[in-house]
Amino acid sequence: MESIKKKIYYHDTDAGGVVYYSNYLKFFEEGRTEYFEKKGIFTEELLKQKIAFVVAKAEIEYKKPLRYKEKFEILTEIERLGNASIVFLHKVMKDETLCCQAKITVVCVNDEMSPVKIPDNIRKILWR
Amino acid sequence: MESIKKKIYYHDTDAGGVVYYSNYLKFFEEGRTEYFEKKGIFTEELLKQKIAFVVAKAEIEYKKPLRYKEKFEILTEIERLGNASIVFLHKVMKDETLCCQAKITVVCVNDEMSPVKIPDNIRKILWR
Amino acid sequence: MESIKKKIYYHDTDAGGVVYYSNYLKFFEEGRTEYFEKKGIFTEELLKQKIAFVVAKAEIEYKKPLRYKEKFEILTEIERLGNASIVFLHKVMKDETLCCQAKITVVCVNDEMSPVKIPDNIRKILWR
Amino acid sequence: MESIKKKIYYHDTDAGGVVYYSNYLKFFEEGRTEYFEKKGIFTEELLKQKIAFVVAKAEIEYKKPLRYKEKFEILTEIERLGNASIVFLHKVMKDETLCCQAKITVVCVNDEMSPVKIPDNIRKILWR
Repeated sequence: MESIKKKIYYHDTDAGGVVYYSNYLKFFEEGRTEYFEKKGIFTEELLKQKIAFVVAKAEIEYKKPLRYKEKFEILTEIERLGNASIVFLHKVMKDETLCCQAKITVVCVNDEMSPVKIPDNIRKILWR
Repeated sequence: MESIKKKIYYHDTDAGGVVYYSNYLKFFEEGRTEYFEKKGIFTEELLKQKIAFVVAKAEIEYKKPLRYKEKFEILTEIERLGNASIVFLHKVMKDETLCCQAKITVVCVNDEMSPVKIPDNIRKILWR
Repeated sequence: MESIKKKIYYHDTDAGGVVYYSNYLKFFEEGRTEYFEKKGIFTEELLKQKIAFVVAKAEIEYKKPLRYKEKFEILTEIERLGNASIVFLHKVMKDETLCCQAKITVVCVNDEMSPVKIPDNIRKILWR
Repeated sequence: MESIKKKIYYHDTDAGGVVYYSNYLKFFEEGRTEYFEKKGIFTEELLKQKIAFVVAKAEIEYKKPLRYKEKFEILTEIERLGNASIVFLHKVMKDETLCCQAKITVVCVNDEMSPVKIPDNIRKILWR
């Protein structure tokens, strides 16, 4: 489980007074990046091996809106590790309140954007 | 079915050379807004009646990435009309290619953010 | 003078109820792109010649905030054509009201990001 | 002088491989907010006094592009304190390299968006 602590600024919000619904996906990107980095996986090094993880699917539930200046936490963990894909589970929490939850499926692709098996060294690290 | 024609600019893209994955949700917002307006429903007038449609759920499938300068179309239709909710089906098409597809559930809420029945006059218009 | 007509959506706004101040720079990017394209200059073709125009300076005056659903126009023209740079003048108008104005200096650079003289064929087209 | 340390994610970048030029203004917003908060000034409390600081002018110089995964610092200080306005000086630094610099003028306005004198208690705090 990887945790990032952040705060809402004006640029995250919309005229409804709450965080704009697409901006949670930016938080989830940050969550996945930090999850990988903590395990020692760097997306820029994967690119040198001509491998990348691209988002194929996102299922997002909006529970409770976040507002300007509120502090929150992005929780990221792996729910399922497939042959060529990973399903991440992301949660945006304000204290004990679940604000937004998402399952995001990333697929391991080669430089022609075709799905390939996740390399064994990466898989081993992710299982740990 | 509502259609909007647009073009990708730099501000839509990321360093991967393609449209950043959260930006499709901005396109879908535009799609829903234009769908409503074509039917004569204006979100700012609903607010005067203390009613709003808020996104509760989004299921997005990323099929084929859009790139800088590409022209595309946002197709929006209603898939399901519930008592208090609407499920929109959005498609982002580049010519005949489906780039991204989403089911987005919006819920009709009052000014305390509690779900309420969609007013009959709105429902009638949406059935047409 | 190049003109683009647009409408404000939620994704353009912030919790202050108005367009977020950085989003005008997205409108100006669209203005410059369409200005170039109308003259037959395509940034992706310049890249093949290993030339690009990059923003070096922006001076923006915020006059009157734009709000949700408002329709506006982005006006773009060239104020000054230098050896290696172009100064664009952008205006965001709501009917007769000037909402935002900017002078944006772009510099012609090679593939090592060093400033180079604007190619003569491009300069001729821009003078027209 | 207020300093914030951050890292570039995909959502900050564009297809040119660098941070999109409008996103620096988001960094500057964060800089100003943290500058104010460190001094004990909270924009949401100013709003209760029907006072707000709105951006009237921005002069930005883009020196060196930031790229994906790069770590950087946002430095914020006050350059000039006027009767009704504050000029902030923001710098985005990557180690010792100045990437972007901006002078951003915010004006103190009342709830009718008319400029008003900065309240004395706020002015005293800012002079410290």
